[in-house]
Amino acid sequence: MASQRNDSLKHKLYSIIFEAETPSGRTFDIILLIMIVASVVVVSLESVVSLRREYLHVFQALEWTFTILFTIEYFLRIYSSERPLRYIFSFFGIIDFLAIIPTYMSLFVIGSQYLLVIRVFRLLRVARIFRLTNFVNEGQVLTKALRASLTKISVFLGVVLMLVVVMGALMYVVEGRASGFTSIPMSIYWAIVTLTTVGFGDITPATPLGKLLASCLMIMGYGIIAVPTGIVSVELSRADKLDATSRVCPNCHKEGHSSDARYCDNCGFPLRRLAE
Amino acid sequence: MASQRNDSLKHKLYSIIFEAETPSGRTFDIILLIMIVASVVVVSLESVVSLRREYLHVFQALEWTFTILFTIEYFLRIYSSERPLRYIFSFFGIIDFLAIIPTYMSLFVIGSQYLLVIRVFRLLRVARIFRLTNFVNEGQVLTKALRASLTKISVFLGVVLMLVVVMGALMYVVEGRASGFTSIPMSIYWAIVTLTTVGFGDITPATPLGKLLASCLMIMGYGIIAVPTGIVSVELSRADKLDATSRVCPNCHKEGHSSDARYCDNCGFPLRRLAE
Amino acid sequence: MASQRNDSLKHKLYSIIFEAETPSGRTFDIILLIMIVASVVVVSLESVVSLRREYLHVFQALEWTFTILFTIEYFLRIYSSERPLRYIFSFFGIIDFLAIIPTYMSLFVIGSQYLLVIRVFRLLRVARIFRLTNFVNEGQVLTKALRASLTKISVFLGVVLMLVVVMGALMYVVEGRASGFTSIPMSIYWAIVTLTTVGFGDITPATPLGKLLASCLMIMGYGIIAVPTGIVSVELSRADKLDATSRVCPNCHKEGHSSDARYCDNCGFPLRRLAE
Amino acid sequence: MASQRNDSLKHKLYSIIFEAETPSGRTFDIILLIMIVASVVVVSLESVVSLRREYLHVFQALEWTFTILFTIEYFLRIYSSERPLRYIFSFFGIIDFLAIIPTYMSLFVIGSQYLLVIRVFRLLRVARIFRLTNFVNEGQVLTKALRASLTKISVFLGVVLMLVVVMGALMYVVEGRASGFTSIPMSIYWAIVTLTTVGFGDITPATPLGKLLASCLMIMGYGIIAVPTGIVSVELSRADKLDATSRVCPNCHKEGHSSDARYCDNCGFPLRRLAE
Repeated sequence: MASQRNDSLKHKLYSIIFEAETPSGRTFDIILLIMIVASVVVVSLESVVSLRREYLHVFQALEWTFTILFTIEYFLRIYSSERPLRYIFSFFGIIDFLAIIPTYMSLFVIGSQYLLVIRVFRLLRVARIFRLTNFVNEGQVLTKALRASLTKISVFLGVVLMLVVVMGALMYVVEGRASGFTSIPMSIYWAIVTLTTVGFGDITPATPLGKLLASCLMIMGYGIIAVPTGIVSVELSRADKLDATSRVCPNCHKEGHSSDARYCDNCGFPLRRLAE
Repeated sequence: MASQRNDSLKHKLYSIIFEAETPSGRTFDIILLIMIVASVVVVSLESVVSLRREYLHVFQALEWTFTILFTIEYFLRIYSSERPLRYIFSFFGIIDFLAIIPTYMSLFVIGSQYLLVIRVFRLLRVARIFRLTNFVNEGQVLTKALRASLTKISVFLGVVLMLVVVMGALMYVVEGRASGFTSIPMSIYWAIVTLTTVGFGDITPATPLGKLLASCLMIMGYGIIAVPTGIVSVELSRADKLDATSRVCPNCHKEGHSSDARYCDNCGFPLRRLAE
Repeated sequence: MASQRNDSLKHKLYSIIFEAETPSGRTFDIILLIMIVASVVVVSLESVVSLRREYLHVFQALEWTFTILFTIEYFLRIYSSERPLRYIFSFFGIIDFLAIIPTYMSLFVIGSQYLLVIRVFRLLRVARIFRLTNFVNEGQVLTKALRASLTKISVFLGVVLMLVVVMGALMYVVEGRASGFTSIPMSIYWAIVTLTTVGFGDITPATPLGKLLASCLMIMGYGIIAVPTGIVSVELSRADKLDATSRVCPNCHKEGHSSDARYCDNCGFPLRRLAE
Repeated sequence: MASQRNDSLKHKLYSIIFEAETPSGRTFDIILLIMIVASVVVVSLESVVSLRREYLHVFQALEWTFTILFTIEYFLRIYSSERPLRYIFSFFGIIDFLAIIPTYMSLFVIGSQYLLVIRVFRLLRVARIFRLTNFVNEGQVLTKALRASLTKISVFLGVVLMLVVVMGALMYVVEGRASGFTSIPMSIYWAIVTLTTVGFGDITPATPLGKLLASCLMIMGYGIIAVPTGIVSVELSRADKLDATSRVCPNCHKEGHSSDARYCDNCGFPLRRLAE
């Protein structure tokens, strides 16, 4: 009897904590969203010297409040889930754990509380609130397109890395220590800063030959940005088309009806509704 | 009788001020365009110390002239419009109001006259002059494409914001105050400067680990620019296709049928053939 | 008789100077190409202080040699062309004139010889050498695509300019003179540097609010680069398709055959050859 | 008899060194991959002053070990290949040679060992390991698309170079030596830094006119990045379509027919239907 009551409590907790469709589940997720954002803001503001000097106790009180609440939530999640171990070692389980541990660590290691910003990853979980809108769906289209272009992008990144290593070494030989190119790793860092068109300007070439090489690197960086852009455009446009061509007319078999079409635009036959 | 004459005056004013198709309406709009640009230029030049010292009185005279003229125009707009309140609280009504108020404010608050540059937004209103060309139409295609890709771009921006917060906090822990990463908000600002490939160079990493993290952030920023570009390309190409075929169903009035459609995909009614 | 000999000389000169298909015409163009590049290099090197000190006489001798040769060429072009006035006021006629005048001007105005780099535009003329390859054709596809997207890009540039003026004025009010935002034009310059992700770092925001505004501007600049890219992609892809769809099968009327196709890929009927 | 045993050894060596499909060949390639990466890391770390001071002997020992192993590999490659001269003067033969020579040179010329980073190009050779995945295939699609857009990109680069030379000369005349524009080549370097949106900030315009010109250059740079991006997008999308349909004509063996083609567009022969 007690076990049954226990089970029903567990089930109720599960529906509140893990689900977002029920009213109580949604309320829980919205409160969680606000708390996560607030706790990240608190950690960020605490790092500002002038603010910490004045409001140190307020910050610490808030931090411990958030941490204790998140700890309770963590254990409730373990308690209410069917297979606790599976939750603990899932992606979100690990994020939830890493989001509370730095505060406890800060009792022993000074400064570790700044790692609390890992909490920002918890926001991913609350993306479920937006499930009613088409946010998640759009995210999936993006993810699918990016995954499809992964090998192309890896080839591209490999070429970029080689280019950066070789140009870095060349610049080290050409410019030398006087201009700030103090070592090959430093020169590779400079080559990355230049190729990606960031251009901090903390290290700049001083010799004519160095400037010529830098110019080539810049024009290359300016041009090859076109490659990943082209790759993603093509993949997104393909993902987009697949999305559209999945509907077939049962009468004339014409494909590619848009998702809000109700009749075939070729023969006028009513289309089947999309599965929901 | 007086009321009727009044009404006819109101109507005439309305056609001059709010419309752009009539010759007098166009002349009014072109004068307005020149005055808005001139008033923005005056405010900008006034802020240059060396010019203000010499021509202060000229600038102030011009500024008050423009403001008084714009104030008269504002009240004429209220007077001549059918539903004055609707104009006052419309987008352009608010812009028109904000464009005149700073000069009056400058009598009480020093420096507020620089907010007059809000006037530049009034130029949007004069975009109607170009209605005869296809400027407005092109602007609508762009706006439609951007609106269609809004959710995808929001997902993208959300991921960028998370990345920037986490990288900022990491850099704060790794680099510390010595290199200029004085707080987490400061480090987040640096991460934005770096990810967007702006790279001011006012803050730069000094430690090897910091440089490694910065390199990753730069390559990410260089790569993920491909995502919004791909999104907008696909949406523009889709908006482009729809635009070419503004076919309307004669039964349910649904727009945007593709050029080879023979039946309305909303109600199944046969569409008229395209003129050839 | 003399007139006829004169005419034949004129004709011969014309075919050497203005045409590129004949062997002598091609030789002339290649020599011209080398001379133009050489003269630009000479002007550039002359501006380097250390080189000028040593080789001033060499540079001046070369410069006058090139100028006199180009002057002779200019008058030969006028002499040999059918309608001299039409050449003089054509795009290339003006460029040819501007390319020789600075050397003569340098006798009176010091420093004006640096304007000789206008000569680099003469290279456009020699693009005809490459006519045998498909360089010019590709250039035309690019130009057509860019012209088609001109109105869209104008709308985009208009929005960018407004954004930059308003953000510049806001930064001027927020940051003030202390951080280097000494006037509104200066702040607009800063806003352009930031929005285009160039980021020189000569002026950077110092206040928290200024950094927040700058962050928004950077993210906007990072995002809206997608718009012109998308526009050009769509136009290029359309220009590309038009290029392909101009061939129609005379038997089954299927369109879109590639330029090297000899038979219709739908019905196997031989296609008409492309006009050459 | 000896010659035959020799031949079999040669054949076995060839299959280990040049092939990647056999287990021994793959093991060889993976060891090679690790050694190449390790040797590049050693050269890079050796250039760091603080590390060299302490571990000079370790670095030198490792460098000579790698060089001797690579030398042995080089001679085994010459020995085992059918036509040694063809290997020596092939792309990879030259890379392999350049990858070992700097260490021997460093006995005579100080600093030349840094050229050892050329070794990173040897990684290209080991790309064969990934042949089992679709890495190489994707690389070929990218290469094909880039080669197809080569002429378009050359036209684009030509225009960029002209722009940069003219703007550089103009800035030299406008800004002069005081702001760091010490010569035309220096100003061209600055124009490249600015147009590519790198923006080091080591040289920045100081006069109002210079800032105006710089603003134009930045907006141009921001806009024309759209051109190569559009070109690559279109070519990639075309390469992508051709790739999807590697249909070959059974009569004339022409490849690359589109998926809905029913007849070969080169000889008019009926194509086999696609397997479904």
